[in-house]
Amino acid sequence: MFSFNKLVIFGVGLIGGSLARALRERAGAKGRVVGVGRSAQSVARAVELGVIDEAVALDADVALARALSDADIVLLAAPVAQTEPLLARIAPFLDARTIVTDAGSTKSDVVSSARKALGASRIKQFVPGHPIAGRESSGVEAALPELYVELNVVLCPLPENAAADIEKIEAMWRATGACVRQMSEAQHDRVFASVSHLPHVLSCALVDQILAAPDAELKFFFAAGGFRDFTRIAASSPEMWRDICLANRTALLVELDDYVNVLARFRAAIEASDGAALEEAFARSRMARTEWQERGGIKPAGK
Amino acid sequence: MFSFNKLVIFGVGLIGGSLARALRERAGAKGRVVGVGRSAQSVARAVELGVIDEAVALDADVALARALSDADIVLLAAPVAQTEPLLARIAPFLDARTIVTDAGSTKSDVVSSARKALGASRIKQFVPGHPIAGRESSGVEAALPELYVELNVVLCPLPENAAADIEKIEAMWRATGACVRQMSEAQHDRVFASVSHLPHVLSCALVDQILAAPDAELKFFFAAGGFRDFTRIAASSPEMWRDICLANRTALLVELDDYVNVLARFRAAIEASDGAALEEAFARSRMARTEWQERGGIKPAGK
Repeated sequence: MFSFNKLVIFGVGLIGGSLARALRERAGAKGRVVGVGRSAQSVARAVELGVIDEAVALDADVALARALSDADIVLLAAPVAQTEPLLARIAPFLDARTIVTDAGSTKSDVVSSARKALGASRIKQFVPGHPIAGRESSGVEAALPELYVELNVVLCPLPENAAADIEKIEAMWRATGACVRQMSEAQHDRVFASVSHLPHVLSCALVDQILAAPDAELKFFFAAGGFRDFTRIAASSPEMWRDICLANRTALLVELDDYVNVLARFRAAIEASDGAALEEAFARSRMARTEWQERGGIKPAGK
Repeated sequence: MFSFNKLVIFGVGLIGGSLARALRERAGAKGRVVGVGRSAQSVARAVELGVIDEAVALDADVALARALSDADIVLLAAPVAQTEPLLARIAPFLDARTIVTDAGSTKSDVVSSARKALGASRIKQFVPGHPIAGRESSGVEAALPELYVELNVVLCPLPENAAADIEKIEAMWRATGACVRQMSEAQHDRVFASVSHLPHVLSCALVDQILAAPDAELKFFFAAGGFRDFTRIAASSPEMWRDICLANRTALLVELDDYVNVLARFRAAIEASDGAALEEAFARSRMARTEWQERGGIKPAGK
């Protein structure tokens, strides 16, 4: 059974709030949960809802020092762009026994920020992680004790991490019902560039293309089911996706260039009226897509 | 109120069957409906279900001649690639008073096939059309009297068509509950290349890219909600999409090349780490996609 003395969560929204609720309500873990926000007020709602025990403002030196002094685990659940300033803020108060982990959607940049902010002496305390949860809803009100059940959590341990620290973070996520998988941060970023970040860019590019067309209105008027599904992700947070695309820039550019090459193959088959090649490619995609669906490759988002 | 003496449908599946049911059960139109299939047996089910009155085999000269002799309207509801051979087969038996229309997903190629098969003397009898209905289900069993309610039907009248003939086909579709809109066949093909055919190619290309990746299994394992929505259309019929891509080749290549240019703009912003440009593009797409959804731009497929 997983237990902890004190967990400090920076950013108590869907991700951090659901972790707190899962550990207490689902896993029955005892231990104090402290939420840190830009202001004490911004985390007050989490206290009201009973998700955390105590709210601390990021700029309150004394309270922050006290909160961190005897924490077992610190979770960063704020946008990835804030990793470096947050860790820099935490570093002076960080106890040598505390393990810090995060929930960012990209990992190479987070590791690089952590190395800068924590320095060579403390980087061993940082175990990078990424819970793969749908972000359709957000905010602490949406937090659920069952959010992580059967979802995947990726950990990207560093060579400097102690085995026991990695094991502790794994045990924490397993206690929420999640399946934990380890890979390198480069591997993580390639995988998510391909199956998550690239589709978002492709979807937005299609909407943007239609917007710029002289007959945009007619096109939107006749857009039906295929367009609806294809562009659903284009409706999510621009700021979040801006940060993700920049944070995972290198891997995303590799996948994007590769995609343009694949598209050139499809284009050549269409231009040459090569029906056999087109049908083969469409049939291959259909089979892969159908098998993926049948294997239950989809974790229901936000459930 | 719409009425007809005899309607002959080539290809009695979802599209043709729903038209027959809508005219009789919804609009209360009297008139005989004849279904033509590759064999009499292939349309026998439609007779059993009461969707049509009579089944005729395409290769039965006498029966086909009799079926066509006093038809008001002929509907081609077979794959677009069959337009020319079907019209060539019909032409010798076609009464000068009969109006022929179709339900093909592409229009320039259909018009060109019709011009070849019907010749200058009879092309005036052909009024090209495209009911925009979801094709998730197929076959006459899926046919519904309410399929076309609030769906859009595009007509692409030819300069040779008589105004009264266009009006009759419009009235037929209006009687099913559909909204009818006219445009040129070139305009039609541009619109659907953009909002339907291109998304299909883009979706298949992503699945194909992942399939070819050395870490394909890992990528499929971690694919979640965005991937699911983005690639849903990749699971539809390879033969149908092959035919559509080839039939609408010219317009599709124009849209595809334009898309690659839009993608190059996104790529440049990512490469330059231009967060402002990315956020602006993502925000623009989100607003357009959200407004589209709120305007009710989606006609529920197959309802």
